[in-house]
Amino acid sequence: MNHPNRVTRLAARLERALLVTSLVNIRYLTGFTGTSAYLVMRPDGGTLITDGRYIEMAQDLAAAIPGIDLKQHAANLMEVLVGAIGPDTEAFDVEADHVSWAFARRLQDAATGRVLPATGIVEALRKVKDSDEVDALRRAAAAGDHAFATLDGLLETAESEGDLGLGLIDSMRAAGGDAAGWPPIVAVGANAARPHHRSGAGDLAGAGLLLMDYGCVVDGYHSDMTRTVWIGDNTDPEMVEIHAAVLEANEAGIAAALPGAKAHDVDEACRAVLRAHGYEEFFVHSTGHGVGLEVHEAPWVKKDSEDVLEAGHVVTIEPGVYLPGKGGVRIEDMVLVTEDGNDVLTRSTKEMRPA
Amino acid sequence: MNHPNRVTRLAARLERALLVTSLVNIRYLTGFTGTSAYLVMRPDGGTLITDGRYIEMAQDLAAAIPGIDLKQHAANLMEVLVGAIGPDTEAFDVEADHVSWAFARRLQDAATGRVLPATGIVEALRKVKDSDEVDALRRAAAAGDHAFATLDGLLETAESEGDLGLGLIDSMRAAGGDAAGWPPIVAVGANAARPHHRSGAGDLAGAGLLLMDYGCVVDGYHSDMTRTVWIGDNTDPEMVEIHAAVLEANEAGIAAALPGAKAHDVDEACRAVLRAHGYEEFFVHSTGHGVGLEVHEAPWVKKDSEDVLEAGHVVTIEPGVYLPGKGGVRIEDMVLVTEDGNDVLTRSTKEMRPA
Repeated sequence: MNHPNRVTRLAARLERALLVTSLVNIRYLTGFTGTSAYLVMRPDGGTLITDGRYIEMAQDLAAAIPGIDLKQHAANLMEVLVGAIGPDTEAFDVEADHVSWAFARRLQDAATGRVLPATGIVEALRKVKDSDEVDALRRAAAAGDHAFATLDGLLETAESEGDLGLGLIDSMRAAGGDAAGWPPIVAVGANAARPHHRSGAGDLAGAGLLLMDYGCVVDGYHSDMTRTVWIGDNTDPEMVEIHAAVLEANEAGIAAALPGAKAHDVDEACRAVLRAHGYEEFFVHSTGHGVGLEVHEAPWVKKDSEDVLEAGHVVTIEPGVYLPGKGGVRIEDMVLVTEDGNDVLTRSTKEMRPA
Repeated sequence: MNHPNRVTRLAARLERALLVTSLVNIRYLTGFTGTSAYLVMRPDGGTLITDGRYIEMAQDLAAAIPGIDLKQHAANLMEVLVGAIGPDTEAFDVEADHVSWAFARRLQDAATGRVLPATGIVEALRKVKDSDEVDALRRAAAAGDHAFATLDGLLETAESEGDLGLGLIDSMRAAGGDAAGWPPIVAVGANAARPHHRSGAGDLAGAGLLLMDYGCVVDGYHSDMTRTVWIGDNTDPEMVEIHAAVLEANEAGIAAALPGAKAHDVDEACRAVLRAHGYEEFFVHSTGHGVGLEVHEAPWVKKDSEDVLEAGHVVTIEPGVYLPGKGGVRIEDMVLVTEDGNDVLTRSTKEMRPA
């Protein structure tokens, strides 16, 4: 695994100690997968801190990363943290997005040095995926594709949106993808007009429009994909037109997602297509987001993003058009930016009538 | 629903405005179940604040609660929050456990008044469950009991700990319980010696000791139960003895969980039984916790708890004994404290050989 390399890269960027409290960031740096840990990173090394439940797991992880030692805490957490930061430290950084205000106050009470708020330091490293991460993301995307390939079979037994969502989860699990922390969004007919529809009893028989937004987890890495199809006869001409426009926008976004591209220009590439078709006002969300240990993470593909795409970034491209009370279409792919272009990790057909 | 009553009780306790940011607390007070909202509570009323995705849901909820109005925010969140708090407010409280340090800093920058850290205000109300909540908790506990009643059938097909965990989830779902955000802990043999074992490929064939800690969700309310049984022949005499001691401790804890009892005395009631049997050092966690909209919430049944049990509290009683490398036994029930005693919501048999 690449944890030693990740830790070295972070240490090289630090001017003073950084208390990492995000469990996702700690997992990225050390492989720790328990529910409670802290990582003090210093320019010269680091200390992983956890409690008795996870100390055995943490011993193995710390032993595999040069420069990282291990401390156990119980009720004396603040004392152990301050000890690892260094009692004589004049000032140190804390991940201000990932500690509660109450925690920051307790830490300042315990520390002699000044506690400074820091944001996005580890997240900036996480934007660029290494080979292990790309491999896990590919397998997660493939499990999503496998589930889409089983759609005909799932529709034979699923009666409701909720049934179909569970069926997609089962299919992904069969392909090696663990259930994600969020349920599939399955929306039929007018329900598809709500971008965050909560799947319920919506009847699949002769559904017409069917939107599915779902994903899974492989080795901690997420997939995220959306397809919108038509079930049954009598395709609605307006939805066919919208589907074609959204697909064109999705392809334009992918074509723009190149190394060196500004993320807000990728967003604009999608938006321009929908504007040309008269649907811009119905594209009510941003174009996409990074995917990794979190299903939504940097870089952000949206209007006011300051991110610039680089080789190793994995982002979604997911334009959508939603007509309230009528229906909606979204098409979402995961895209790996490469040195000389990109590689679309989601491989399922995007046709409205895939059968 | 009891939301108007809950909001009135909270408002009566406030001396100044309180910004509620915990989504669980906001759900408790208003019924809001989306993923982003804020609630400004003032002694004279309150303002529910959300974004465009949830504004329709929030309109219905706010309309049902006298004194609560609704505001929508977009990128101007801090401005909307400060407006709802009251621009002339000299000082106001914020849930310091439920905002990030970064958020607290942004809020202080936007506000003219002083931002003060508050903790546990809504959580204190949530400790005492009302009739709607007790009803949901009863149904969640019953779904857990239903799953335990299907154990023989599940064991016929489950090959691994993970399989059995999924089977328990399916059984609870069939009884009306939604999947919880945490997977069942299913641990066979020596795996049961780890209180937080992560279920994996552990082989169920002739398992011997089998520990199952699991729960579900009904209308947002959690259940949580643990049973430890013996599968197959040749019961281990040491584990039989431990099971009897843990069961005696569980019953002593339940007998002590009465209105007016100090929570730390309930913990001691369990601990004293295990001490008498020579197992105290192997009881490495606390006795229990409140259960409600969160699976772990106040009141806390542990050594240093300052909670005093009252009618309407629902807590777990879950003593356990863990022998490293050999195995472990835990027995966990949900207990509703009543005016004149208590009512054990978990009804499954606690025998080691239930068949």
